[in-house]
Amino acid sequence: MPATLSSSPSLFPLSSFPSSNKPQIGFCPTPTRLTNFTSLSKPKSPLRKLTPLSAVSIEKETVISERPDTFLREADGQDDGSVRSRFQRMILEVQDTVCAALEAVDGAGKFKEDAWTRPGGGGGISRVLQDGAVFEKAGVNISVVYGVMPPEAYRAAKGSATDQKPGPVPFFAAGVSSVLHPKNPFAPTLHFNYRYFETDAPKDAPGAPRQWWFGGGTDLTPAYIFEEDVKHFHSIQKKACDKFDPSFYPRFKKWCDDYFYIKHRGERRGLGGIFFDDLNDYDQEMLLSFATECASSVVPAYIPIIEKRKDTPFNESQKAWQQLRRGRYVEFNLVYDRGTTFGLKTGGRIESILVSLPLSARWEYDHKPDEGSEEWKLLDACINPKEWI
Amino acid sequence: MPATLSSSPSLFPLSSFPSSNKPQIGFCPTPTRLTNFTSLSKPKSPLRKLTPLSAVSIEKETVISERPDTFLREADGQDDGSVRSRFQRMILEVQDTVCAALEAVDGAGKFKEDAWTRPGGGGGISRVLQDGAVFEKAGVNISVVYGVMPPEAYRAAKGSATDQKPGPVPFFAAGVSSVLHPKNPFAPTLHFNYRYFETDAPKDAPGAPRQWWFGGGTDLTPAYIFEEDVKHFHSIQKKACDKFDPSFYPRFKKWCDDYFYIKHRGERRGLGGIFFDDLNDYDQEMLLSFATECASSVVPAYIPIIEKRKDTPFNESQKAWQQLRRGRYVEFNLVYDRGTTFGLKTGGRIESILVSLPLSARWEYDHKPDEGSEEWKLLDACINPKEWI
Repeated sequence: MPATLSSSPSLFPLSSFPSSNKPQIGFCPTPTRLTNFTSLSKPKSPLRKLTPLSAVSIEKETVISERPDTFLREADGQDDGSVRSRFQRMILEVQDTVCAALEAVDGAGKFKEDAWTRPGGGGGISRVLQDGAVFEKAGVNISVVYGVMPPEAYRAAKGSATDQKPGPVPFFAAGVSSVLHPKNPFAPTLHFNYRYFETDAPKDAPGAPRQWWFGGGTDLTPAYIFEEDVKHFHSIQKKACDKFDPSFYPRFKKWCDDYFYIKHRGERRGLGGIFFDDLNDYDQEMLLSFATECASSVVPAYIPIIEKRKDTPFNESQKAWQQLRRGRYVEFNLVYDRGTTFGLKTGGRIESILVSLPLSARWEYDHKPDEGSEEWKLLDACINPKEWI
Repeated sequence: MPATLSSSPSLFPLSSFPSSNKPQIGFCPTPTRLTNFTSLSKPKSPLRKLTPLSAVSIEKETVISERPDTFLREADGQDDGSVRSRFQRMILEVQDTVCAALEAVDGAGKFKEDAWTRPGGGGGISRVLQDGAVFEKAGVNISVVYGVMPPEAYRAAKGSATDQKPGPVPFFAAGVSSVLHPKNPFAPTLHFNYRYFETDAPKDAPGAPRQWWFGGGTDLTPAYIFEEDVKHFHSIQKKACDKFDPSFYPRFKKWCDDYFYIKHRGERRGLGGIFFDDLNDYDQEMLLSFATECASSVVPAYIPIIEKRKDTPFNESQKAWQQLRRGRYVEFNLVYDRGTTFGLKTGGRIESILVSLPLSARWEYDHKPDEGSEEWKLLDACINPKEWI
């Protein structure tokens, strides 16, 4: 890592740590670089107090040769039934399950694993399968972060600016994050990311509450539309949602369409799925189960589609169209995705963050698919999101 | 253009409109999107008053079938000897000269031209040569912009926050911007961009001065180092600089190394050249001549290198390395380049802005060239900038 980055430590080395317009960590950057992060506060409040980036801090990672059983601090208890420890167990299991399913469907490629820890606790495991038989690039990362957020962010979270001057607020974050890019232009890209965030109660502000929230989502990005595939994918998302609350699927489907929006193109990057963030207005146990259910739905939602499309014959022009859509993926991730932009600017593990980028991508000047063509239909669905089920 | 963009109009549809830590337009963004722009003020001042993005405005472009002789407003005089009109003439000539030289060296590819105007004056011409014999993608754009900046930005430019409440300050900007990506991995990418910026004297703040400045640069991004090529390129830049001030080359060479820095990688995107911005502390006529000299140096600096390298035999792995370096180019342009990020977020002509992206690019997980290899030497020079002459 470049020395210049050591002074601006990382918060989340998740390849995707997006945020809605609800609670997040707020800061205003140095004059030369701004980073976009809304503040831990109400959605619509306009310009609120911002804090320097350097106020959000975690320690630098150390590469380790063997993965540990846990990244939790000893003081957290290793298996004490806390939400922290159960969420960590869940993401470790999801990483195993998803990687096993991907290796099985690929047949040739194997995941390469990199693990790291941080001196004061936390760490991560990146697993990447590159240039397999089916997958061009598939990354499945988990990470656990202990950090410190500026008191302003915490105060904002409580919805009021008090005269209290609490010190920095320690926080805990854990997540699984994955992007899967197949080779075949008829096999869609998948992204999923589930995460849990918790602050400690600030020591010097007696009575101030501990905060927690869940975020995440699963979304599909094909280059060509097979309606049965998109319907299958969305049905599985809806099924996972409906087990918990009938309002979840319509709400999180729309949130997903809104989030994965490439504003400068007026297009979504793909055909959506579900997305939610800063979810804390339900029972904590219920939301832990919900995140677990969503993450467990990745394999049944995606693998059948890959099985069906991985060997479909294709021509050069179809491959080029897939590459153009991969270019859009790069645009979204580098310009808009909060996890990526935040990670890049704060010194997260770059290779883990950018594993979300495709192996290759393409930009043609002023490319416009012929109206009515299969390429046009995909583009149209990215511009005008549809109800698939 | 998507309807959602019409409310956030564009400022500079230049593919690269970078800024140093000196005068630029400042604003603080909506809660969901931040844009990075320092304010029209002193370099080191930390968090100063920021203004909503929507306060910087220009009108939406209209595609035209034939290029006009001028994009200047009639009130500006068409050929009155003003710096505005002479700068416009210069960039139009540079566009012609560079495009003619590129078509000649390519032999097969031809530039496609798109022109547009804006109702209240200003417009632009994009010229793109795609998939030629020598060039994968070559874009040469000029544009002229009349816009309005928030009074806070103007006040900040004067270095003091007064109690005066002047209205929005009209400004004029014109520039030529170009990125040239050859096919052969031994033939380097070139970028150049020269621009002139002027504010009107604010009508409701009597005595407030008109501001103007020049910016620009030319830089080389090879995938492999041929020392004679890099020396030739830098020598031509130095020669152009030395005609005006012996301090220019060392100062602008360093500025270039500092600007084209991919912070999250700890690498520059290439081997530099010259870069300057917000230059107004010299005689205006002298700086107009200097910008003209720099722009005129593009052809002699670049074309001989292309002639020499365009037909060098190469293998697949050398092409893949070029593609990886193109990935870095995409990272720099989408994450850091101020012109690109600003243009994307404010609704500039997207195809003109993103013509700077290569036709194709590649991201491999955790790629590290073998120490001592030709690829490693290039990477080393990007990490540790050298004095080439």
